Amino acid sequence: MVFENIQINLLEKCQLDPQWPVVVGVSGGPDSLCLLDVLARLVFPVVVAHLDHGLRPESQDEAKSVREIASRYGLPFVLGQEDVQSYARTKGLSMEEAARAVRYEFLFSQAELHKAQAVAVGHNADDQVETVLMHLLRGAGPSGLGGMEFHSLPNAWSRNIALVRPLLNVWREEIEAYLAARELKPAQDLSNQDVRFYRNRLRHELIPFLESYNPRIKSHMWQTAEILRQENGLLDELVNEAWAACAREQGGAIALRLEAFKSQPLPTQRRLLRRAIAHLRPGLRDVDYAAIQRALDFVESPSRSGQADLITGLLLKREGDRLWLTDREADLPAGDWPQIAPGVELSLEVPGAVDLSGGWRIAAEPVTDIQVALAQAAQNSDPYQAWLDLVRLQLPLKVRARRPGERFRPLGMGGHSLKISDLMINAGMERRRRAGWPLLVSGDGVVWVPGVRVGEKAAIGESSQRLVRLSMYRPPR
Amino acid sequence: MVFENIQINLLEKCQLDPQWPVVVGVSGGPDSLCLLDVLARLVFPVVVAHLDHGLRPESQDEAKSVREIASRYGLPFVLGQEDVQSYARTKGLSMEEAARAVRYEFLFSQAELHKAQAVAVGHNADDQVETVLMHLLRGAGPSGLGGMEFHSLPNAWSRNIALVRPLLNVWREEIEAYLAARELKPAQDLSNQDVRFYRNRLRHELIPFLESYNPRIKSHMWQTAEILRQENGLLDELVNEAWAACAREQGGAIALRLEAFKSQPLPTQRRLLRRAIAHLRPGLRDVDYAAIQRALDFVESPSRSGQADLITGLLLKREGDRLWLTDREADLPAGDWPQIAPGVELSLEVPGAVDLSGGWRIAAEPVTDIQVALAQAAQNSDPYQAWLDLVRLQLPLKVRARRPGERFRPLGMGGHSLKISDLMINAGMERRRRAGWPLLVSGDGVVWVPGVRVGEKAAIGESSQRLVRLSMYRPPR
Repeated sequence: MVFENIQINLLEKCQLDPQWPVVVGVSGGPDSLCLLDVLARLVFPVVVAHLDHGLRPESQDEAKSVREIASRYGLPFVLGQEDVQSYARTKGLSMEEAARAVRYEFLFSQAELHKAQAVAVGHNADDQVETVLMHLLRGAGPSGLGGMEFHSLPNAWSRNIALVRPLLNVWREEIEAYLAARELKPAQDLSNQDVRFYRNRLRHELIPFLESYNPRIKSHMWQTAEILRQENGLLDELVNEAWAACAREQGGAIALRLEAFKSQPLPTQRRLLRRAIAHLRPGLRDVDYAAIQRALDFVESPSRSGQADLITGLLLKREGDRLWLTDREADLPAGDWPQIAPGVELSLEVPGAVDLSGGWRIAAEPVTDIQVALAQAAQNSDPYQAWLDLVRLQLPLKVRARRPGERFRPLGMGGHSLKISDLMINAGMERRRRAGWPLLVSGDGVVWVPGVRVGEKAAIGESSQRLVRLSMYRPPR
Repeated sequence: MVFENIQINLLEKCQLDPQWPVVVGVSGGPDSLCLLDVLARLVFPVVVAHLDHGLRPESQDEAKSVREIASRYGLPFVLGQEDVQSYARTKGLSMEEAARAVRYEFLFSQAELHKAQAVAVGHNADDQVETVLMHLLRGAGPSGLGGMEFHSLPNAWSRNIALVRPLLNVWREEIEAYLAARELKPAQDLSNQDVRFYRNRLRHELIPFLESYNPRIKSHMWQTAEILRQENGLLDELVNEAWAACAREQGGAIALRLEAFKSQPLPTQRRLLRRAIAHLRPGLRDVDYAAIQRALDFVESPSRSGQADLITGLLLKREGDRLWLTDREADLPAGDWPQIAPGVELSLEVPGAVDLSGGWRIAAEPVTDIQVALAQAAQNSDPYQAWLDLVRLQLPLKVRARRPGERFRPLGMGGHSLKISDLMINAGMERRRRAGWPLLVSGDGVVWVPGVRVGEKAAIGESSQRLVRLSMYRPPR
């Protein structure tokens, strides 16, 4: 059953041609081993690819095991090695994000090299349900609830090489049973040493809890995702037409023809705005409901100034029949950014707040429920809020601008320190904002650069006992 | 804030005209009291309507309190009284379903009488989130994830009187704060005596647990539902067009023109099939993914017989360019129904199974996890499976056809017994199926009429210690 199911997936859902090479990402865990075994039995021309992330001491042994697996099947093997830590540091990514980016870049570069039709990875049906739940919990909106796709082209890495997931409807249990029946042993069971804390908690705690409400919840969620994904695809086609009818990109900004925009049904308007934001902020993970609602309200009744904040520094501007989404801050009065005059130092109590220019404010609140806050911090996608370990802070905190040449140790850079000005440049902050940009300071060390990075100095950890939540925001006037 | 928010909802989202009467369903609880207060402050012409379900001894006092509330506001008051128990009995509904049906029928009949524009009810934002979660857990599919609507017209009760929910984006906390500020006391706090066990468990257990993952989960879910509902509406419009292009109702059956059907995108095909099933089975709550998938597979590669089972006795038949969905069983060979010859008695062990005609089978499995099974039973929407209290059964069970004049006490009819033949007629079972229809028997009493009702005799309760799950099904041949 599992074999036949995967075979159908490969040919139909993943649209693979059995004559044409496929690069398979093999970690050595059960999923990719099962995938590889089925592909080998079907005599697909497979290239086994493994990336050594260099994050753990045993990673070299893992690479060796995968090389042995490949040679057992008589299949070509390619090994990549990448310093994920320095990649994370350069790109300002979390370790997990960096590992993922590096891995897919490697797999697709190999696919290019081997003229492969696709990169195949081992995500299974349980992974799909977990992904959907994570998106639900994060508030990623309807398109997030669709989860991952069997066949994705174009994708984030290529316009002509597909990313395929032939195990996406195969449950973890079925994979284990398949491996047992085939007498195959994974190189090691990675699932128990999974460092992805949040996903693990989901797998071992939340999903069993949901199953106590309905034992079939996993399959329900899988099916719901499948339908949502298909319906998303259909809506996307509608949005393509609407986009052609009313959007235009021009000089790093998007203009929407208002008459054409307003003639679209509301859900299409929402999706048009999301697409425009995605164009201008390709790295932005979630666009929250409130931002889209602000934009829709602005379309209905523009503010007297004819412009409004959208999200992460993007601006809405109305000009005749055009609605502009732009990040060109040249047009933004300097006073609209949170700024603090160099030399000034404000005290911030916990709880407490300080007012900055442009109606901005930084607030500090002590956290009551620590478990909740840790989960919240782990999920945080808003660079204008941060959680710090209260015990590691010297109170009151100070808010001030940077000092010439001042340095900072951002969290997740292995203790390296950087010049704050360089960090701001790397983060894409415009020159005119940098000198007066507010920093959070404890004692005489910077602990948070709002909008940019949290510092290592007062970062929270699993053992943190008391937390403070900091946020920079502009209350509605 | 709450007042202004509800005011906007009334005028915009609920599309109410402040000059035209509205019937408000008032239970006396916080939600409806808040709704009533806002409507009274806005001088809407309101009719206060209360239904005494007669299910609890204190219900007369509740009715009296609501009458007093209405008179305090100087508003007309109408009281309905209905014997929900006997309604449930006649219609074969659960008590909760019956109470709901009776309540809305009363509200809409009053709206008709008072020439009202709408019936307004007090569902709040928390109720919305709970509804969405219940649908998610039940596997109700994407349209269920949209939850309830602010304004619903046509609805299940009327084609010209709207059902509106002006508090749908107001949180329970906000309602309580509003009442406190207005010094209003609900007649009683119904929330703690809520008999809806499943919803209560959700509210007090599951939602707080989800909040430990993301404290903003409720507002995320609310927002996701809002978007999904709008997108559902858009998809429904597409399906309207597709329906006009390819569906035709004829003599209690639906015909789909296959060429036109197949030219639709897959998600539209799914929705067309769901709509066809809803036409033929208006009472059916959930149509499962597997049934729709079976239909899609049948369209792609029809079985040799040219027909296939769909769901709850509906049949798919292919005839040239037509795909028929029909429940006319005249065409179905008698052997395709589960039947047992009168006089024959089969023994059913636990665990165990017996084979019936037409490839049907009845299986009995003991339940290991009782909490899971209780939840599953509470959620069950498949009339071909049932859970019974093992301790109250005499083993082995027997499977046999009914005896002349045999009677049965269905669960939830207050101990009343009915002739099994009448019960079958009420359930809409065709004459030709009835005499040989299999019954589950313990000792010499019927404990389950598959597809129809569970009996009181061995029904499960909160104190059940050991359960058995019974199912009647036709294994794939």
